[in-house]
Amino acid sequence: MPVPTPADRFSFGLWTVGWRGQDPFGDATRPPLDPVESVERLAEVGAWGITFHDDDLIPFGADAATRDTLVARLTEATARTGLVVEMVTTNLFTHPAFKDGGLTSNDRSVRRFALRKVLAATDLAAELGATTFVMWGGREGSEYDGAKDLAAAFDRYREGVDTVAGYIKDRGYDLRIALEPKPNEPRGDILLPTVGHALAFIATLEHGDIVGVNPETGHEQMAGLNYTHGLAQALWAGKLFHIDLNGQRSIKYDQDLAFGHGDLTSAFFTVDLLENGFPGGGPRYDGPRHFDYKPSRTDGSDGVWASARANMETYLLLKERALAFRADPAVQEAMAVSGIGELAEPTLAAGERAADLVADPSAGPDFDADAAGERSYAFVHLNQLALRHLMGAR
Amino acid sequence: MPVPTPADRFSFGLWTVGWRGQDPFGDATRPPLDPVESVERLAEVGAWGITFHDDDLIPFGADAATRDTLVARLTEATARTGLVVEMVTTNLFTHPAFKDGGLTSNDRSVRRFALRKVLAATDLAAELGATTFVMWGGREGSEYDGAKDLAAAFDRYREGVDTVAGYIKDRGYDLRIALEPKPNEPRGDILLPTVGHALAFIATLEHGDIVGVNPETGHEQMAGLNYTHGLAQALWAGKLFHIDLNGQRSIKYDQDLAFGHGDLTSAFFTVDLLENGFPGGGPRYDGPRHFDYKPSRTDGSDGVWASARANMETYLLLKERALAFRADPAVQEAMAVSGIGELAEPTLAAGERAADLVADPSAGPDFDADAAGERSYAFVHLNQLALRHLMGAR
Amino acid sequence: MPVPTPADRFSFGLWTVGWRGQDPFGDATRPPLDPVESVERLAEVGAWGITFHDDDLIPFGADAATRDTLVARLTEATARTGLVVEMVTTNLFTHPAFKDGGLTSNDRSVRRFALRKVLAATDLAAELGATTFVMWGGREGSEYDGAKDLAAAFDRYREGVDTVAGYIKDRGYDLRIALEPKPNEPRGDILLPTVGHALAFIATLEHGDIVGVNPETGHEQMAGLNYTHGLAQALWAGKLFHIDLNGQRSIKYDQDLAFGHGDLTSAFFTVDLLENGFPGGGPRYDGPRHFDYKPSRTDGSDGVWASARANMETYLLLKERALAFRADPAVQEAMAVSGIGELAEPTLAAGERAADLVADPSAGPDFDADAAGERSYAFVHLNQLALRHLMGAR
Amino acid sequence: MPVPTPADRFSFGLWTVGWRGQDPFGDATRPPLDPVESVERLAEVGAWGITFHDDDLIPFGADAATRDTLVARLTEATARTGLVVEMVTTNLFTHPAFKDGGLTSNDRSVRRFALRKVLAATDLAAELGATTFVMWGGREGSEYDGAKDLAAAFDRYREGVDTVAGYIKDRGYDLRIALEPKPNEPRGDILLPTVGHALAFIATLEHGDIVGVNPETGHEQMAGLNYTHGLAQALWAGKLFHIDLNGQRSIKYDQDLAFGHGDLTSAFFTVDLLENGFPGGGPRYDGPRHFDYKPSRTDGSDGVWASARANMETYLLLKERALAFRADPAVQEAMAVSGIGELAEPTLAAGERAADLVADPSAGPDFDADAAGERSYAFVHLNQLALRHLMGAR
Repeated sequence: MPVPTPADRFSFGLWTVGWRGQDPFGDATRPPLDPVESVERLAEVGAWGITFHDDDLIPFGADAATRDTLVARLTEATARTGLVVEMVTTNLFTHPAFKDGGLTSNDRSVRRFALRKVLAATDLAAELGATTFVMWGGREGSEYDGAKDLAAAFDRYREGVDTVAGYIKDRGYDLRIALEPKPNEPRGDILLPTVGHALAFIATLEHGDIVGVNPETGHEQMAGLNYTHGLAQALWAGKLFHIDLNGQRSIKYDQDLAFGHGDLTSAFFTVDLLENGFPGGGPRYDGPRHFDYKPSRTDGSDGVWASARANMETYLLLKERALAFRADPAVQEAMAVSGIGELAEPTLAAGERAADLVADPSAGPDFDADAAGERSYAFVHLNQLALRHLMGAR
Repeated sequence: MPVPTPADRFSFGLWTVGWRGQDPFGDATRPPLDPVESVERLAEVGAWGITFHDDDLIPFGADAATRDTLVARLTEATARTGLVVEMVTTNLFTHPAFKDGGLTSNDRSVRRFALRKVLAATDLAAELGATTFVMWGGREGSEYDGAKDLAAAFDRYREGVDTVAGYIKDRGYDLRIALEPKPNEPRGDILLPTVGHALAFIATLEHGDIVGVNPETGHEQMAGLNYTHGLAQALWAGKLFHIDLNGQRSIKYDQDLAFGHGDLTSAFFTVDLLENGFPGGGPRYDGPRHFDYKPSRTDGSDGVWASARANMETYLLLKERALAFRADPAVQEAMAVSGIGELAEPTLAAGERAADLVADPSAGPDFDADAAGERSYAFVHLNQLALRHLMGAR
Repeated sequence: MPVPTPADRFSFGLWTVGWRGQDPFGDATRPPLDPVESVERLAEVGAWGITFHDDDLIPFGADAATRDTLVARLTEATARTGLVVEMVTTNLFTHPAFKDGGLTSNDRSVRRFALRKVLAATDLAAELGATTFVMWGGREGSEYDGAKDLAAAFDRYREGVDTVAGYIKDRGYDLRIALEPKPNEPRGDILLPTVGHALAFIATLEHGDIVGVNPETGHEQMAGLNYTHGLAQALWAGKLFHIDLNGQRSIKYDQDLAFGHGDLTSAFFTVDLLENGFPGGGPRYDGPRHFDYKPSRTDGSDGVWASARANMETYLLLKERALAFRADPAVQEAMAVSGIGELAEPTLAAGERAADLVADPSAGPDFDADAAGERSYAFVHLNQLALRHLMGAR
Repeated sequence: MPVPTPADRFSFGLWTVGWRGQDPFGDATRPPLDPVESVERLAEVGAWGITFHDDDLIPFGADAATRDTLVARLTEATARTGLVVEMVTTNLFTHPAFKDGGLTSNDRSVRRFALRKVLAATDLAAELGATTFVMWGGREGSEYDGAKDLAAAFDRYREGVDTVAGYIKDRGYDLRIALEPKPNEPRGDILLPTVGHALAFIATLEHGDIVGVNPETGHEQMAGLNYTHGLAQALWAGKLFHIDLNGQRSIKYDQDLAFGHGDLTSAFFTVDLLENGFPGGGPRYDGPRHFDYKPSRTDGSDGVWASARANMETYLLLKERALAFRADPAVQEAMAVSGIGELAEPTLAAGERAADLVADPSAGPDFDADAAGERSYAFVHLNQLALRHLMGAR
């Protein structure tokens, strides 16, 4: 099996390996994990970086001295193990105060508290050398359509994100914000439910230049959407700042399975995009390969580390297969038959304008639409070649 | 029952009442309907406007003379009945030539033919006085992730829409484009699958100022998304140019039921937003109330017109209820308790900056988060008041 | 608004009003509620009965003396308030021991402990006068298909349920078992995921005569299934022993909203079936109207009781509307046009056999299929009449 | 790549390779395919058998002479190529007469016509040597809950299936009926929506002994259900009479992709069950490996045969991997750690009764539940081993 190294830039949230297994119907099945132990174990299994929520490191409401001690402990551990803190985020969802959201809570005092908590977390992120600051608005939403003035909610969301982005600029932090969309859970409907909604929102920001997205595999799939398509639209828009890889099986509760333990074929094409880029070139993702998953509640501590390794092993296997897929002459030929490369050619000729096209009979009355309808794109064959590579059968 | 009048600005696609009932497993159950008869009948039942795809009026491949005759017939009928042609759109999905899409087909000759067809449809739209031009890219997508260079696809999609928008401007047409998102069907995954993705795409256009969205109830619900939330984000972004109202029951194939025959409570809040606007003010939708539904295949011609009336009747009933809901003092009191109006107040005080907030202990160490966690937003009570109004029980 | 009385036979789980609001991403937002207080408050708001899991009343692992004291306290409260304990069930999901299930855990010692816990809960149920014993196997399932020998799992499930049913018979308890299906959450896939699977399983039992189902609104809707259809098949099979009414909005995590706060039209037809029965007669449900919902986490204690009342109010409003719907001559006429009553007539004539039908040319070559294809069932009109009644618009 | 042979018993519906690509939004993209050509080509690519609807072979309404000629042509082709007709089914969905169903149409004359059509199709099945007779009630259902007396519908459904089964027995045909469930499409809600509902229905039949199920991969997955779990429950009940293998990506319209082109990991475990059986033994499926899929509409005739081959190739690859998976000592060890085999052991000891268990303190007060909660089932490791095998990485 391929072995992960820091060069692969795999990172894990402290809350992933540290998840104790409590769920809506059951109590924790594993003991707490000291963040320092997580750092050490992640280094052992080949990870390159870690990420965390403020509260994963520093308990909610801790005083400044406790904070500094805990930060120093972590810094010592990362320095010792060589792990990077690549991303930090804020927990605006666990404490009951956030039950109607943080930045868009109907309660202004909560909004102020939440916004200040986010600002403090950017300080922490900068202090620890993170370059990405994720904002997941998991409680920004509602169960009932009458419960939220939606225009006001978007106003407040914009105010919040712009305030944070402006603060980052003012402080000169080397940080970019990545918004993380999710359609629902824990709220009935969450604002900015998909990559698309988040990208659209970013386009309305004053400081949108340092704001992008952090799409999570399962979150898009919970809306039945194609994760790789979401990554592609974000990349194309220059906004794929970070990724959360995991696994989900169909439309249901947020499963947070290990990467590849959900829709494996989709995972193959995700890795294909991340490692090979678009077939015709274009923007590339060069950020961390970050896993946001939960070790199964049925497993003990051995399962925590087995699952951490599984994420990386599956990624590396898929990478191996995706590289071979693109390099295979039979695949290249099949892609040509399918017209994959043809799509890069502009529809209009150089200098051609709409009026010219209207005047071109070959695109109008003279066009043989029936013949065009008979063209075989042979997509099934191309997909079968992908499956063969995925299955190591070539 | 409330009776629709042209002042309500209800409009219908000719393809809606004209749908003959063919589905993936069955043949047509109703005879063809002459567009002129549709116009006459729609006028009788109280509609204000009609809409259509180019091919609904003019068969694919018809020559110019046929086109002109058919346009003249329709114009005569609309003039006679007083109906408005408020929107026109292009069929880029029925003919086999479009099987891999129109503007993003892997085949460049198809893209050119498709783009020219769209341009011709804008001419038709302008000629008939339509002010909205809808673009639904139902075949722009794929079943297999390897079948499409997604960056190239977005490039071509942008080229296509910008070309059309530029043409509209060049010609001086009084037309705005409205993109219609859909997550899947007839393709496995459609590009621009939700309102969010379409809004994000528009933000990348050169001529995005005249491009907005046309969200369809069922399309958003096919991704499990909240339709009213989608309308709200589009409105907030100044991009709600048109709407397609219908009904859908959960995540499954595209049902196109009559408005209100899907999720009735969601329909209530949709009408509430359309008729009352956001609680705290903000952008309003003032376009047509357009229905894009299919009369049930089990029904004969009587059912076609019964369903046309049902759409309008349900809308008007919900409007009546939504107006009463907002006017009810008990509701206003409940909204106040829930903090609905409080969300309009900026989180930062006038002139306050991030650094000021950081320095404000009342938003930090002095904030009583536990007390905030105990606030009751009483959303269930507010929702029950909405249900009472919806059910006419007050 | 209609006011509930004990004659309506509304019942609530102690775990419903007692839910403190902890969810996968957040801590409890409400203080614990003493079961005795719940009983008193439920009596005040018009409920007739209560239900509970063993652990709702008696903490996991409590000794016999504690158990007896707590049972006595509850008995005193129900006697004083007149509330009935109509159903009892077992918690086989909260404790970590059950993380791979109870009756089908891969660990035999857990299975034995679980089965014994269920048997003890039947003793408790009988002691308190309950007549229904619900078994929800929420942890019986898996996340990975390789993690469970499915034939063995069904064998063990059958062994478990038959053992419990046999024990109930041996003890002479006046109890019937009702299995509660759910498709997923907290497991990736739960065994007996729908009403159908549970009914099919019951047909394989030795003591299936006292085993039926307890369908929950949201559980069926989490699989996109029609709840009323599920109730109907169970009723038709003589197996609708109990019901769990609540609300769910589309396919997502288990929302447990108040009844009617999910799909309102579906709720209307559920009440129509429960109160009016099948149009042509047949089996009726005469059990409790039991609510299994969660008061929104955003609400305080006021919201707990507001939501308890909302469940009952909505049920009674829908009952009022459903009775009027069926009594309306216009509806009866529309039902006749739609052929609703015609379906009760056997397809074969009295005494007719298959061979006779084969020999009947009127059902073969002489049948005018095209004419039959033109019949208008006018279902949209009938549905619009239902909507009018639901909205109180007639 | 592995090459299919008749020994693999792969079969295809004539309607699969013969699908012309018409969909709800588009016209056919491929010319009609003569059934005889399909037989010849399927034989060439290594298939063993074919299946068809009556109307696939004999156009609706054809006279007896036409029927006989067409049957003779097919018989000649199957005899010449050695292909087996393993299953026949009836089309009760295409003609408008069936728009409200066949056996449960509200119109009795349609029910009689439909039932007679089914009986005639059993004659055809027997004549051609088929041993399975599939009944898919795709139109038995409704869009509106008020449109169907559900008890009457189940009565008629039972009458219909029992009449057919009785007829098969009377005629002495060597045929078993297999009901095919589907949750929706083309109806809003279809009766017998899942494997479970069909199994439950069968348990109510007079002639249920010759009635089983024909589960289709995508149909179960359209309800978010686990296909392999469905097969397992049917097998365990002795009712898995036939299978329809294909591919589906999440909950959406019925995609009918090639087998393995949907959820590949689920396909692996399906093949694992079919080829290896349950880990601890039990009932085995020994019927045909039947594909019910649609060649992508984007592909020409080359794609039809490429996709036919893809189904078989993927099956054989997965079979190879599944055999290696079970034979791998590391997997066997992991299965032991996970307790897979332990589930086969009865929960009660030999001769032990419920009362004995109640009296056993080791299953009660003496049981160390906390220790049991700490057991690691190590399911993630086992699943990762499965993925390695699936990916050919061991």
